[in-house]
Amino acid sequence: MTQTIGLTEYLFARLKQLGVGAIHGLPGDFNLTLLDFVEPSGLTWVGNANELNAGYAADGYARIKGLGALITTFGVGELSAINAIAGAYAERVPVVHIVGVPSRELQDSRAMVHHTFNDGDFGRFALMAAHVTVGQEKLWDPRDAPQQIDSVLRKCLVHSRPVYIEIPVDMVDAQVSRENLNIPVTSGNVLPGAGQATALEKVLQKMASAKQPVILVDGETRSLGIVDEVRALVNKTGWPTWTTGFGKSIIDETLPNFHGLYRGGFASPEAREFFEGSDLVLFFGAHPSTTNSFHLSALPSKEKSIWFKDTNVLLGSEIVRDVPMKALMTELLKQLEASKFTVYETYPSQIPTDTILSFDGLPRDQPVTQDRLWKVLANFIRPGDIVMGETGTPGYGVREFKLPENARMVTFSTWLSIGYMLPAAQGAALAQRELQKDKQGRTILLIGDGSFQLTAQEIATMVRQNLDIVIFLFNNDGYTIERCIHGANQGYNDVSPWRYLQAASFFGAPEDSYTKRVKTWGDLEETLGDKVLSDGRGIRMAEIILDRDDAPEGPLKVLMSKQKPGI
Amino acid sequence: MTQTIGLTEYLFARLKQLGVGAIHGLPGDFNLTLLDFVEPSGLTWVGNANELNAGYAADGYARIKGLGALITTFGVGELSAINAIAGAYAERVPVVHIVGVPSRELQDSRAMVHHTFNDGDFGRFALMAAHVTVGQEKLWDPRDAPQQIDSVLRKCLVHSRPVYIEIPVDMVDAQVSRENLNIPVTSGNVLPGAGQATALEKVLQKMASAKQPVILVDGETRSLGIVDEVRALVNKTGWPTWTTGFGKSIIDETLPNFHGLYRGGFASPEAREFFEGSDLVLFFGAHPSTTNSFHLSALPSKEKSIWFKDTNVLLGSEIVRDVPMKALMTELLKQLEASKFTVYETYPSQIPTDTILSFDGLPRDQPVTQDRLWKVLANFIRPGDIVMGETGTPGYGVREFKLPENARMVTFSTWLSIGYMLPAAQGAALAQRELQKDKQGRTILLIGDGSFQLTAQEIATMVRQNLDIVIFLFNNDGYTIERCIHGANQGYNDVSPWRYLQAASFFGAPEDSYTKRVKTWGDLEETLGDKVLSDGRGIRMAEIILDRDDAPEGPLKVLMSKQKPGI
Repeated sequence: MTQTIGLTEYLFARLKQLGVGAIHGLPGDFNLTLLDFVEPSGLTWVGNANELNAGYAADGYARIKGLGALITTFGVGELSAINAIAGAYAERVPVVHIVGVPSRELQDSRAMVHHTFNDGDFGRFALMAAHVTVGQEKLWDPRDAPQQIDSVLRKCLVHSRPVYIEIPVDMVDAQVSRENLNIPVTSGNVLPGAGQATALEKVLQKMASAKQPVILVDGETRSLGIVDEVRALVNKTGWPTWTTGFGKSIIDETLPNFHGLYRGGFASPEAREFFEGSDLVLFFGAHPSTTNSFHLSALPSKEKSIWFKDTNVLLGSEIVRDVPMKALMTELLKQLEASKFTVYETYPSQIPTDTILSFDGLPRDQPVTQDRLWKVLANFIRPGDIVMGETGTPGYGVREFKLPENARMVTFSTWLSIGYMLPAAQGAALAQRELQKDKQGRTILLIGDGSFQLTAQEIATMVRQNLDIVIFLFNNDGYTIERCIHGANQGYNDVSPWRYLQAASFFGAPEDSYTKRVKTWGDLEETLGDKVLSDGRGIRMAEIILDRDDAPEGPLKVLMSKQKPGI
Repeated sequence: MTQTIGLTEYLFARLKQLGVGAIHGLPGDFNLTLLDFVEPSGLTWVGNANELNAGYAADGYARIKGLGALITTFGVGELSAINAIAGAYAERVPVVHIVGVPSRELQDSRAMVHHTFNDGDFGRFALMAAHVTVGQEKLWDPRDAPQQIDSVLRKCLVHSRPVYIEIPVDMVDAQVSRENLNIPVTSGNVLPGAGQATALEKVLQKMASAKQPVILVDGETRSLGIVDEVRALVNKTGWPTWTTGFGKSIIDETLPNFHGLYRGGFASPEAREFFEGSDLVLFFGAHPSTTNSFHLSALPSKEKSIWFKDTNVLLGSEIVRDVPMKALMTELLKQLEASKFTVYETYPSQIPTDTILSFDGLPRDQPVTQDRLWKVLANFIRPGDIVMGETGTPGYGVREFKLPENARMVTFSTWLSIGYMLPAAQGAALAQRELQKDKQGRTILLIGDGSFQLTAQEIATMVRQNLDIVIFLFNNDGYTIERCIHGANQGYNDVSPWRYLQAASFFGAPEDSYTKRVKTWGDLEETLGDKVLSDGRGIRMAEIILDRDDAPEGPLKVLMSKQKPGI
């Protein structure tokens, strides 16, 4: 075997080794020759409708598959995608952003080419990217390139955050050493850190002495790579367990010791009393933004809790640094066999659990309302499904779902960029298909009319990739989440009225694609029972009409009632 | 009258003074209270479908009206728009980007709020914006704010490039001094600079001694604010005149001494011989990117030309700095009255001029082809029209139009971000309506299928704002401009096939909106003659089917023939 390999082939081989099966993006003249290598490398090329959407799709893909990638072109393409990259940074999603840039000759000569500011400066887009990525590499010298690629991919995995790679046109097929390809790129997170022994001792001691311990699972549990370990701990201890919104679906919601989302100031009195009365909260994958913590009210007090973060363990005011969580959790589970931890003699059965509502007793001729909608819609979800709740009232609403086993929920927790979820659903559905050869699980998108408008064209990519996606479009005549916050009756919270159910046809799906408008509980019952919607192929879409001032129970409804006292 | 005014009211009053009639953008919770002041200030609020589109629309508006503005929200909104801001920077369009940001209290306390990276850093989006704007102001102290606003708006005008303004939520209605409002903000470009006398002397001397002088008008003539002066010079001298692609429509194309676009290596032999044989080229508003100069072949040689740039005059190897062009041109025109300049005794009638083709002799039953399409479509254009040719084959094609008097053409010259032109057409049509109370001129968008897909949803905004826009959609089954460059038969240059003519209906226009599919010259003749298309209201759309490997005559066709030798 020859000792060299083309640079792009090296990069794509690495991505394949790391489980990437598809690359999202758009062509542009500085990346066309790069794209020549995608399909020959055994990767699927997903041509998206625009770059922001490609970035969102790569993020959605990465949340399901563990790593995602997109290719854009210099300047115009990469900047269009940068908000998606920022979102991946905020929510710790590992995405590799590959940018085709002008040749070294053009750059060295400061040529006045398109996609620049006519000033010979080719460096500033990379400087912009540095604010929203954990690693950046410009592949300028074939002698350096393999190490640069390996190093930046490793950073992507270690930190579970996006990285940025520039490939000049004339470097695309540069020959580089293939020597390293036999050595896997890994995060190295299994090696114990300097603080491990200290952290372990303190954690075990607190777990042994707690009187009323509970567990709170947050979303960075995924990026820390400790989902299996946390699940094992929840099973083993039997301790009462909640998740945050971001952490939802990490824990099997059918477990007897699982109690749903912890809502802090919006929780039921019983749940709140028990949680706040706890003397130990194991808080895994802490992501303590205001929007992920019911305005901080759902965060466990620092004195009574242990926060398992990035690489630190927080015990009250003490921080133990350099504790990679994967190594810590592996060792913790081992030692827990032999060690003692508090066991509830009688399980505290007074704590309420999230529930599902049936259609019984719902007035079939009455309009659908958000007070019960979400708990009813939860009936539709099956094991293996991916549930994607877009920012807005659906993002809040889906948090009320009691999920079946092995269902996955995706919501934005902190970045909250509207428009994200539709392209992310394209990426997630593709990843799901790659993972599930039997096509059992479905991808279900729940999205409001306002959000839908930002990125609707990615339905065309769903069609082109033959993806099977159920879309619930909640039409409440504008940005209801903004109406809740301010300007309930202001025109700036309106959106233009589209004929939403024409979407599939417009974007190229078969003209007889399933569509249904739902106004009443009766319509909803009929729709959810329709086998074409639930088990058909391609895009199936239901438009659910809601009052524009209606919102799910909880923070949004409270905010709206301050805007409109009658609500 | 009270001596103070709310900060936002101050800013909006300034924008109104400068001719802004409408603000583009989207609501977000950090800008909602800001938006409360838009309509009460007498400005129209244009709620776009997404922020990138809002940025493009503000750019399109600014190109017609002289200044544009958009409002987005912190992080997610502003980053989505940043590629549009970069485009305005590259092409020297004055756009004010106003961002609603978290309150000073939240920022000071490094709160972990949404739209951040949960790290207490609120500054990095402004650092990113600094790469693509000429001025940035964070309005943090009511004592500073009015001066900050005036200063940054002045920069926007002086440099004709975008600026960035951050308004914390709690500063929106801070009371500030209204004292300065009586003093207009101006670019100050009418004041002569240090180099003026030197430049003037040298220019006049060369104009008096030239034997075969010509004029080349480029697009930065607009941003320099010297359109009227250059027009006057073209009229007064009678010298043979060309424009670049970027400069197209600055000069009345019906003038006897106007010869169309100068195409350098792609020009007719007669035009090239005359232009290159010239001993003096007055090159106004030089924007010498490769894509605006037929790969540099249309640039006049430096030894024989005078380049009127930003604030410099280039005469051969000599640079005279600090010469604001408005002041220079005003004085030049004055002195030219009394001074001598070369007059052609016999006008060189051998130089060809761009022409319009009639339908005579076109085979009505044959498919439309790009070799003649553009010169035929030129018949459709009337005085007062705005012609918007999107990047791709239409962007090249429209450069063949011989325009009637007082028509305006908009194309991207260097930034070339596909997807720009559709939202820009929304902005331009709105600006046109504000300027032309009689609604004589039309906005005509010419766009390929690939580009259309990036930003199609802004058709809904056109509908909502009751704009009258003609859309020619050129369906050539993918990114033909990329096929010309590389990968003519590669799948990555394909796009998903939409049912384009359903667009108006899907996006909420009346269901009987005009649509027509054009395949043959006969179809085209019938369509262009239809009064509903040419003089109707609302969105009228014709889909023109083209061969996917067809391209306008010139660089693209040459590139494609290298890809596919038969073409």
